[in-house]
Amino acid sequence: MTHRFIDLPPEALGFAQTSIDRADKYRDNAAFLEDARSYGTSLTLVFIGDMPLIMCGNTPLNVLFTFNNVPFATDIGEPIFLGLENGNPRFAIVLPEQCLPELSVREDVKAVDLRTLAVKSLVTPQHLNLLATAQALLNWHGKHKFCANCGQKTKLKSAGWKRICDACQSEHFPRTDPVVIMMATYSDKCLLGRSKHFPQGMYSCLAGFVEPGESVENAVRREIMEETSIKIGSVAYHHSQPWPFPTSLMIGCLGQALSDEIKIDGLEIEDARWFSKLELAQIMNGTHKEGITAPTKMSIANHLMQAFLDF
Amino acid sequence: MTHRFIDLPPEALGFAQTSIDRADKYRDNAAFLEDARSYGTSLTLVFIGDMPLIMCGNTPLNVLFTFNNVPFATDIGEPIFLGLENGNPRFAIVLPEQCLPELSVREDVKAVDLRTLAVKSLVTPQHLNLLATAQALLNWHGKHKFCANCGQKTKLKSAGWKRICDACQSEHFPRTDPVVIMMATYSDKCLLGRSKHFPQGMYSCLAGFVEPGESVENAVRREIMEETSIKIGSVAYHHSQPWPFPTSLMIGCLGQALSDEIKIDGLEIEDARWFSKLELAQIMNGTHKEGITAPTKMSIANHLMQAFLDF
Repeated sequence: MTHRFIDLPPEALGFAQTSIDRADKYRDNAAFLEDARSYGTSLTLVFIGDMPLIMCGNTPLNVLFTFNNVPFATDIGEPIFLGLENGNPRFAIVLPEQCLPELSVREDVKAVDLRTLAVKSLVTPQHLNLLATAQALLNWHGKHKFCANCGQKTKLKSAGWKRICDACQSEHFPRTDPVVIMMATYSDKCLLGRSKHFPQGMYSCLAGFVEPGESVENAVRREIMEETSIKIGSVAYHHSQPWPFPTSLMIGCLGQALSDEIKIDGLEIEDARWFSKLELAQIMNGTHKEGITAPTKMSIANHLMQAFLDF
Repeated sequence: MTHRFIDLPPEALGFAQTSIDRADKYRDNAAFLEDARSYGTSLTLVFIGDMPLIMCGNTPLNVLFTFNNVPFATDIGEPIFLGLENGNPRFAIVLPEQCLPELSVREDVKAVDLRTLAVKSLVTPQHLNLLATAQALLNWHGKHKFCANCGQKTKLKSAGWKRICDACQSEHFPRTDPVVIMMATYSDKCLLGRSKHFPQGMYSCLAGFVEPGESVENAVRREIMEETSIKIGSVAYHHSQPWPFPTSLMIGCLGQALSDEIKIDGLEIEDARWFSKLELAQIMNGTHKEGITAPTKMSIANHLMQAFLDF
């Protein structure tokens, strides 16, 4: 049982690259943050709602604006401090939705959803990570304006890394939901399923939230049992991936099935099937006879499938 | 790079064993839940505040009560449904704190905090897991009575696995915070640190919350860099452990250090040192010349230390 050491994440795995020094020591340094906005070297991501703005042009697209160059003159509120890129401050700001009409007539900037940027590799891997960090934080702020403990309004603190409640003194930290995503294998075959929300023909790995009181390994076993009635023995960790839709951490695993008779739950998934290695290879390269397809290479599901082919 | 498959968790690792079939299909089945409380085979954990009640006696202590035998006649509210143990329903209930004076004179039942039950192995590993699940859920309910989205009161639903807001229709699910806990190694030595909150003489693995936009591997690198200025290259997953204080999932990792000059941050930890394998073995068996001690075997930190000795 030798440990499997991981150096860099696979290049295509979306959002998982290292981007910047998060420099958390500056999050509560008001003087630094105030100054930093005026540096010529400070740049900021700009969101409208949950969509980042890109500057139109050749790929990789630029997503970092100078504060002087934020495309709409408006009150941008308190920026989120994301850290330092080669020593230079990086922020994220959100524009109010009333900028949307004005945006629609601009040809130099455009709002593009983050999934599209990732699937089509439209920005650099480092900027994808920066966007994922900002989007996860913004998704959290968007749904946590009030104190879950006492119901009063909370306010943003620590440059976006905390919210506090003046009424009951609670501190609230960004939420990150661990999700297991896993492929069960049984001798030469692997288990893939599809939810009814998937694009037609696509099969992927099963997945679900880790529940209170569960280890990663037990969450893998429970989810596969719930969705397909397949019993899993040993579980191996493969890799992880931040997934800001809205605030997840994907924990990719492989599971050794102890049985192969599938019974679909009919709730979370509409189908699950065993596929041979040969079929999986065809699915991955788009030549499967039934037209079955795999999720994109930016997803950890694709990398779990590849790991099985590489066994 | 072969995957490392894990079958059962180490027996001593607290809270990490499988206990019961969570049977999530019954969480929204009001008729089943209502009936189940009257079954003679239904049993319930009983908490006062965040302390489980135990029946005094020989170890392993019994922590499961019949509903008729709940020690204080009081309104127990809506029980949390934990699942089925050999087909028999298991619940958790919370007694109001006004039961505390009455409890203090009872000799047959006692409230004991969950950490003590785990450290001293006072209940079975399966019941430790059941208690951890209940305690994580109760901790979450305790701090989430209001809707973070709109500030109105929320109510418990799905037998304790959800809260809903009638005002804005938001659904809130239990929070589980992923935490990386890791040991850096550098040739024959390993890095341990101590927080000022630790018992005197104890050193342990470094740890910290996974932040939005981070993979597990990058969180490991960032935390060790922040706390000790040690740069980490490759990272290996070791094991995971539910940790209901209040609602964490510990993700245990090993990290290969690329440098060995320690600079303490002075904030999160008060000291960090490199220990040789020989010293670590002495720490683990209580013979270190400076009296340095390790955390208990129920913690994943202890198992990470053992993993390094076993290399």
